[in-house]
Amino acid sequence: MSIDVVELARSLIACRSVTPADDGALAVLDRALTGLGFATEHLSFGPAGEETPNLFARLGSSGPHLCFAGHTDVVPPGDGWSADPFGGTIRDGLLFGRGIADMKGGIAAFVSAVSSLLAQRPLNGSVSLLITGDEEGPARHGTKDVLPWMVEHGHRPDFCLVGEPTNPMHLGETIKIGRRGSLNACITIEGTQGHVAYPHLADNPVHRLIAILGELTGRELDRGNAHFSASSLQVVSIDVGNPATNVIPQKASAVLNIRFNTEHRGETLLRWIEACVERHAPGRGRIESQISGEAFLTEPAAPVRALQDVIARHTGNAALLDTGGGTSDARFITSVCPVAEFGLVGATMHKADECVPVADLETLVGIYRDFLEAFGL
Amino acid sequence: MSIDVVELARSLIACRSVTPADDGALAVLDRALTGLGFATEHLSFGPAGEETPNLFARLGSSGPHLCFAGHTDVVPPGDGWSADPFGGTIRDGLLFGRGIADMKGGIAAFVSAVSSLLAQRPLNGSVSLLITGDEEGPARHGTKDVLPWMVEHGHRPDFCLVGEPTNPMHLGETIKIGRRGSLNACITIEGTQGHVAYPHLADNPVHRLIAILGELTGRELDRGNAHFSASSLQVVSIDVGNPATNVIPQKASAVLNIRFNTEHRGETLLRWIEACVERHAPGRGRIESQISGEAFLTEPAAPVRALQDVIARHTGNAALLDTGGGTSDARFITSVCPVAEFGLVGATMHKADECVPVADLETLVGIYRDFLEAFGL
Repeated sequence: MSIDVVELARSLIACRSVTPADDGALAVLDRALTGLGFATEHLSFGPAGEETPNLFARLGSSGPHLCFAGHTDVVPPGDGWSADPFGGTIRDGLLFGRGIADMKGGIAAFVSAVSSLLAQRPLNGSVSLLITGDEEGPARHGTKDVLPWMVEHGHRPDFCLVGEPTNPMHLGETIKIGRRGSLNACITIEGTQGHVAYPHLADNPVHRLIAILGELTGRELDRGNAHFSASSLQVVSIDVGNPATNVIPQKASAVLNIRFNTEHRGETLLRWIEACVERHAPGRGRIESQISGEAFLTEPAAPVRALQDVIARHTGNAALLDTGGGTSDARFITSVCPVAEFGLVGATMHKADECVPVADLETLVGIYRDFLEAFGL
Repeated sequence: MSIDVVELARSLIACRSVTPADDGALAVLDRALTGLGFATEHLSFGPAGEETPNLFARLGSSGPHLCFAGHTDVVPPGDGWSADPFGGTIRDGLLFGRGIADMKGGIAAFVSAVSSLLAQRPLNGSVSLLITGDEEGPARHGTKDVLPWMVEHGHRPDFCLVGEPTNPMHLGETIKIGRRGSLNACITIEGTQGHVAYPHLADNPVHRLIAILGELTGRELDRGNAHFSASSLQVVSIDVGNPATNVIPQKASAVLNIRFNTEHRGETLLRWIEACVERHAPGRGRIESQISGEAFLTEPAAPVRALQDVIARHTGNAALLDTGGGTSDARFITSVCPVAEFGLVGATMHKADECVPVADLETLVGIYRDFLEAFGL
């Protein structure tokens, strides 16, 4: 018996699962999957009292094993809606709701696709779902913590499809096969305070910082490669906070972010920054850094090509294999298996009146269903 | 009848003339000068209710005309004194009091020197005093406003001696014959805000500012000249205030100060900064600037050489002709006549327990007295 994508999507929208709340969203999913024969596990990770709820569900135990990953949490609705953000209104062929694009609609489409296949024949291999209740928040105890549990319990997939809204304007435009890495660094230079009239008695930390930042911003990190645009270093803030025009300040600091492609590793970039700081401010520099993700690429092999073919058949679009934009949970999954991302159109995500065409939901069910078959399930 | 330098200095110290208060200080001076035959003028300038009190006094009407310039206002006493800051205590040969070094003691010594000369013979030429009640404060309506009045009323001097405490440690070490100029500039660059993941859609004002400041700090303005040390540009603050590491900010600003010698004019430096900003941030830069003084030099001609000779005779020191340090009212006087500065030892000025040796006060009377004669008075 097949699950209707719109009905399941509306049931998920009705749950006010603004991070970190779940409001029954994972239970809605659990019921639908259990009904299809899935074995489900509720996995809570994190400090007591603030656990992140996650759901892992699997049907079948043999290979090949395809995993679908996603999240049921949503960002706050904010103001300016023409419909109830949790009401599931359909108007002019559009289904409205917070999270319908990002990404309750993608989850509903995948579950519906599996049910449609099962209505005709038993599954070959196995299919699983890794659904977290925290992707929009700090994401410390979501996908990141479920993955080692999966590996430990014999659930390492052969391939993972993330249902994030990858298409900018039209369904079928874009598959993401990688993401850039991200590095934050805060550089603080300690100088020696003094009067501007006697600069030889002081040591201006601002001048050292200008030299450092001039060198860092002056380097072309790379020119991009076959699958990535060029890496980019952006100085996002410099702060000294000295109100006196006749005083050379004691210290100065700058914050920078690097979005880097597979030509670099976070650690290598950090060593480069450290060497630059030490050269221009020996013994006077301090760096606080955070590598929030390494760059990764899933080589466009068989599963990605199959997904492209299916998309072309359903939408007429030749989906672009992209690696641009921000970060997603795919950065964690890449360490366990190859991963690609494809879902709905993201034009309205995180905005008022988030919505998707009902027709897109139905097309996406067809795409996911045919991809399951192409994957050999 | 000769005026005792210590007695007059203590009468001045007793007036709590913390800027903008006068507390009778100019009246004390007026009485002493009137007693010596000076014609005095009380000149108030500035907005009604907040006028700055100034005193101009002149004896004689023919040339040569020597003017002595100074101020009776003092900085607040602050804490930590071992004696009453307005009590005029003498202990171990030291006279204590707020403003005794900077510069009530210098004024008392000059008046005493004139009285000592007049006790022996009538004056040749004329001598005047330009005394303001606001040198330590904003100094907008003090010496700056008295000078045009003097010129207008036929009192342009041939030479001016400012009685500021020019000696770092010992009486006779230093005569100031010029000062560096000072320019403040606040540069603000307007960019286009955006997400760090899409730098091509934004315009990072921090990067433009780094390029501007790199160029400005990279230039050697000069290597100094016969009378001045090298000009110096110091960036004293950069402020962006962007707390988000994933956002390219909308604007960024920096504040710099240039202390420049006679190789430069404030306007020329400002044009250079403007051109640099326009080159690196066409149409996106804004500069707020203030030239608080141009560099000036009084060529060490006859009067300065005579002062050096007199100092050597009284102290055994070969006074250095210096142009270093901060700014003074001499920057205004230079536009009217040649000006040099010589007074007491400034080691304790603006500090608790400001004091000078009584012996220094007496030696300074002798120096001023002999300089009056050397000047032909």
